[in-house]
Amino acid sequence: MSAANSVHAADRLVASTATTGSIACVGLDPRPELLPSSLVADALRAHEDPLDQVCHAFLAFNQGVLDAVAGACAAVKPQSACYEAYGWRGWRVLEATIEHAHSLGIPVILDAKRGDIGSTAIHYRQGLLTEAPGLEEGAFVRGLGVDWITASPFLGSDSVEPLIGSVDEGKGAFILARTSNPGADDVQGLLVGGEHLSTVVARLVHEWGVSRIGDSGYSDVGAVVGATWPQIAAALRQLMPHTLFLVPGFGAQGGSAAHAVAGANKRGDGVLVSSSRAIAGAWQSADADSEFAAAARDALDRMNDLLNAAMAAQATSRTAS
Amino acid sequence: MSAANSVHAADRLVASTATTGSIACVGLDPRPELLPSSLVADALRAHEDPLDQVCHAFLAFNQGVLDAVAGACAAVKPQSACYEAYGWRGWRVLEATIEHAHSLGIPVILDAKRGDIGSTAIHYRQGLLTEAPGLEEGAFVRGLGVDWITASPFLGSDSVEPLIGSVDEGKGAFILARTSNPGADDVQGLLVGGEHLSTVVARLVHEWGVSRIGDSGYSDVGAVVGATWPQIAAALRQLMPHTLFLVPGFGAQGGSAAHAVAGANKRGDGVLVSSSRAIAGAWQSADADSEFAAAARDALDRMNDLLNAAMAAQATSRTAS
Repeated sequence: MSAANSVHAADRLVASTATTGSIACVGLDPRPELLPSSLVADALRAHEDPLDQVCHAFLAFNQGVLDAVAGACAAVKPQSACYEAYGWRGWRVLEATIEHAHSLGIPVILDAKRGDIGSTAIHYRQGLLTEAPGLEEGAFVRGLGVDWITASPFLGSDSVEPLIGSVDEGKGAFILARTSNPGADDVQGLLVGGEHLSTVVARLVHEWGVSRIGDSGYSDVGAVVGATWPQIAAALRQLMPHTLFLVPGFGAQGGSAAHAVAGANKRGDGVLVSSSRAIAGAWQSADADSEFAAAARDALDRMNDLLNAAMAAQATSRTAS
Repeated sequence: MSAANSVHAADRLVASTATTGSIACVGLDPRPELLPSSLVADALRAHEDPLDQVCHAFLAFNQGVLDAVAGACAAVKPQSACYEAYGWRGWRVLEATIEHAHSLGIPVILDAKRGDIGSTAIHYRQGLLTEAPGLEEGAFVRGLGVDWITASPFLGSDSVEPLIGSVDEGKGAFILARTSNPGADDVQGLLVGGEHLSTVVARLVHEWGVSRIGDSGYSDVGAVVGATWPQIAAALRQLMPHTLFLVPGFGAQGGSAAHAVAGANKRGDGVLVSSSRAIAGAWQSADADSEFAAAARDALDRMNDLLNAAMAAQATSRTAS
């Protein structure tokens, strides 16, 4: 079985980076202030209720961005909080967004940062990744059906194992190891036996995934490692050779392209770099706000160039040293 | 302003324990296997679609349990994962459940264990606790409107502060310090400078809340401390004198009543003990499954007796020592 045809979650994600020539993951975090005025005007004309207006505009915005970035990014990453902020109607926009991404062949990573004990972790798995039981024997209800979720390690192994399920279901989880925010140090930077808590988590992530490695060389248990901690990312890579890194914090939060790929593997893969506002909100620094989709694609193309150049530079410096 | 009339989230919760004579928090974690056959039969008759069936039965179940436990518990605690497992329809059941609890005057704690960086934490606050902005200036959309949520400290101070907002909004967050599951030790039990990570988190929780104390003597930043770690709970209480403890793990997970109140304050308050399956699923050990609501109330009454006796015994042993 080749990696491209594998059901394995990591193989599919790696195949997507190869097909698109991109290690970028486009964040889909709609917010009222991120919407171009043309979409706002459409939504206000179409609906009277403020909630209807928001949902109408969010979906149009996401669909426009998705159509524009399809084929040029490895994955997309909706932030669950942006949709939950608008209740069940927001959740429905999330469902429609995921469906649209999948219709374009784009893998979806739901940024949900869930983490809970055994039976509850199973419910999260069912609702976000797979399917939940109905009332009658054999009846099932489809969940969001995303390909990967982000998850917290704070509750330990018995919270992660039920969430990741079995490899052949083709789903994966990126476990928070070192987040991109300044406050990450408060807990993740605490010293445990002389090393950061994030280092201890990295060892756990490796253990959770080591028996789950696909043809691509990567497991379906990934790690979130922020672009704002490049030295830590390089060190964590040594502990997690078979782990895909999801890298937030590029651009808006201050991480450069070189920093964002600091956790790449020697052979030049293993990182997926996410960017939200700089792509979806690119129209805000462009000339005409009706061109939000084209502006998003331009920004993505520039991001791909930067990331691919940084990957090449890193490979060169490794060969030289 | 007396504690009973205060808008402060901790004051309102403490007032609820006084009014009801109960420190119990009833979990609302509907699952197909937890439903009595009469409700399943009703739902199968009413709908053909498996999702409609589940949602119909969940809401009827929750409403029955809520009607039965109103006035005899300090709060109720829906587990977000059970509803998310059924998508936007499940989220709508969650909304209706919260509305029903509030119509009965019962404070609601949403067990969501959320945790994310700044702007995302604000979205969680808006959607779960307060309200989110519409497209037009001054337009707002109501969120779930729960009174408290549970949250993870893993991303540090800049993830917790936006989530807890300002005191006068009357909302609170219970921060995970020591969860009840066996795997909690994997991360929360790591030694940081000779003490458990959960101890370090307890100090942070105290810091986050110390300027936010209401007339009741408690802040609106609480802590989750499992009944399965009674010695740890007693030690953490010393570090968090003004912190309400939400205590999972009573009953089903093995914590006794004495263990569950191990983190109580000297004056005999400060803990809220949650139980889910043992209350809502009490009909499974009763004679007639049509009496699920009455069985839930009986189980709650027994739990209240056990907890109140354990609190009294603890006060006596303190006086004696």
